[in-house]
Amino acid sequence: MNAMTPSHLAYVPFVSVANMMKLVHHIGLERFLIDLSGDIEADFKRWPEFDKVARVASHSPGGVIELMPTADRALYGFKYVNGHPKNTRTGHQTVTAFGVLSDVATGYPVLFTEMTLLTALRTAAMSALVGRYLAPKDADVMALIGNGAQCEFQAFAFRAICGINRLKLFDIDPKASEKAATNLRAHGFDVRICQSAQDAVEGAQIITTCTADKQYATILTDNMVGAGVHVNAIGGDCPGKTELHRDILLRADIFVEYPEQTRVEGEIQQLNEDHPVTELWQVMRGDVPGRRDARQITLFDSVGFATEDFSALRYVKRMVEDTGFAVPLDLLADPDDPRDLFGMLERAKPV
Amino acid sequence: MNAMTPSHLAYVPFVSVANMMKLVHHIGLERFLIDLSGDIEADFKRWPEFDKVARVASHSPGGVIELMPTADRALYGFKYVNGHPKNTRTGHQTVTAFGVLSDVATGYPVLFTEMTLLTALRTAAMSALVGRYLAPKDADVMALIGNGAQCEFQAFAFRAICGINRLKLFDIDPKASEKAATNLRAHGFDVRICQSAQDAVEGAQIITTCTADKQYATILTDNMVGAGVHVNAIGGDCPGKTELHRDILLRADIFVEYPEQTRVEGEIQQLNEDHPVTELWQVMRGDVPGRRDARQITLFDSVGFATEDFSALRYVKRMVEDTGFAVPLDLLADPDDPRDLFGMLERAKPV
Repeated sequence: MNAMTPSHLAYVPFVSVANMMKLVHHIGLERFLIDLSGDIEADFKRWPEFDKVARVASHSPGGVIELMPTADRALYGFKYVNGHPKNTRTGHQTVTAFGVLSDVATGYPVLFTEMTLLTALRTAAMSALVGRYLAPKDADVMALIGNGAQCEFQAFAFRAICGINRLKLFDIDPKASEKAATNLRAHGFDVRICQSAQDAVEGAQIITTCTADKQYATILTDNMVGAGVHVNAIGGDCPGKTELHRDILLRADIFVEYPEQTRVEGEIQQLNEDHPVTELWQVMRGDVPGRRDARQITLFDSVGFATEDFSALRYVKRMVEDTGFAVPLDLLADPDDPRDLFGMLERAKPV
Repeated sequence: MNAMTPSHLAYVPFVSVANMMKLVHHIGLERFLIDLSGDIEADFKRWPEFDKVARVASHSPGGVIELMPTADRALYGFKYVNGHPKNTRTGHQTVTAFGVLSDVATGYPVLFTEMTLLTALRTAAMSALVGRYLAPKDADVMALIGNGAQCEFQAFAFRAICGINRLKLFDIDPKASEKAATNLRAHGFDVRICQSAQDAVEGAQIITTCTADKQYATILTDNMVGAGVHVNAIGGDCPGKTELHRDILLRADIFVEYPEQTRVEGEIQQLNEDHPVTELWQVMRGDVPGRRDARQITLFDSVGFATEDFSALRYVKRMVEDTGFAVPLDLLADPDDPRDLFGMLERAKPV
């Protein structure tokens, strides 16, 4: 083997943003969300098989950079993700992400992919999956408060997975609502733009909050959440960042992904450390009930957990096989003799 | 902007293995090691400015996968690295790595690079840098025990930084020693292959151990380490993996990178948790002495710390600027309107 023509071991399949978009259109957005939510559900049902740690966060005045690893016996996955609420002022995304899936047996990466788009998709797929367990059976209207980058994906996932077609939008920036309404109406959603969060939640059986900025700390006040509602709270996801008034939490039955992480990052950081919560993997396995009655307020305190990214990485790995949507990246040094890394370098010397 | 032609914000400079090798030859291996050790030293001297955490390890029967993050106020870096001792049996590297450097202000990655080769270089640069502080002044012979992928890089770094040209090699696999000897003699090193570790250490003022396999737990026994020697112990770097007999540790003054990590991973996992160690950043700042006298045994219990990778990432970032050694990778979704991720996806739809 010539040092300049690496063996197949040197290459890691890479899915760029452009190719992720092609993959989504190739599969179809709703099919992608349905299949991904199925994979997430299957992985939640085998929850004890995963190595789980709260994500590793590096906080700075402008935001946070996080690493989210998890593994089962066969595969290891991690996501790099940032959260910088002020980024939109300079034309940057609030959240960007990429991820890697690796073979546990060798430690070699087997997939490297953009995850900004994939995170939006898996977050929406997870929300709607949880909605299937917790939302009232007759739900047909969802309030969407916060009409940023995550908003339309939530709408598509709840339509594909829970059959919700009627949406009430509110954002403190009317342009954000107009953007979302235009995007969604083009796909047959029944959309109403509201002038206040109060207006948006009226008549909605599902309330999704997905705002980004740390400063809007009380998106929902206690009086806005009536009996029987399911609250899908996406935006409260790091220390000091919450969206719901504490009184709502005290009236709700709270469902979480991984309590160790949610107690630090989620809405429940406002509550005592021993406040009872239900773990979603137990609901999905049927070990504990989800929604019990029509008047119960259910709350999914969503912060996003590493197994959801793992499910998404594995789904994409499977879907890009035998397509042109992954291109080989020369990421791993692979000398003929694994002990002769120096020799490989030597043979690459320009003559 | 067309969705299929991302803006400059979408692209992350990527350094492949082939380009890293070109960069090393472009700069020159010895110059690379000297400059990188200078950057590592400068960063150790400003140690308190870094966010430091022990690396996040995922252990499995065959090895370990680790994430090593750190940050200062301006930049965030992390490395993905695996360690799988049995990998060579299937033609894989024991250690592969890649890394990312990001802008703390936005969370956006600014460099994505192979780090298998770069880790070998930074490990060697760090060893020789520490050798400059701890090895006896008249040292001219180094024993190199373990002649795998790291061996030649250690030799080059100790020659470039400490002036060591005479090497005594030993490996339980004679082919590994022959490989290293051939590589090193071609560059003017005075190399002798030894039949035992005992033979190799005789007359050496510096002993470098860089073996990989968990099963060779006692590379050096107590009688092999005489007064005045500096031991550069590279290979003991995860729980249950050590190279030195405990009695050597009890006679040596032990120098470490980050005690919280070394007590778990290094040779000193064999000692009590309160056994005194000296932190290298304090030695480099001149706050505490390095080698004090000619008969002292000094031991660098090297496990590799995230700031060393940070220094290496930043060095590579600087060096590839205005060269062709980094190519743009379409890694970050970057819609015109940051809140309109969905619209970007829509516009990418095949017509």
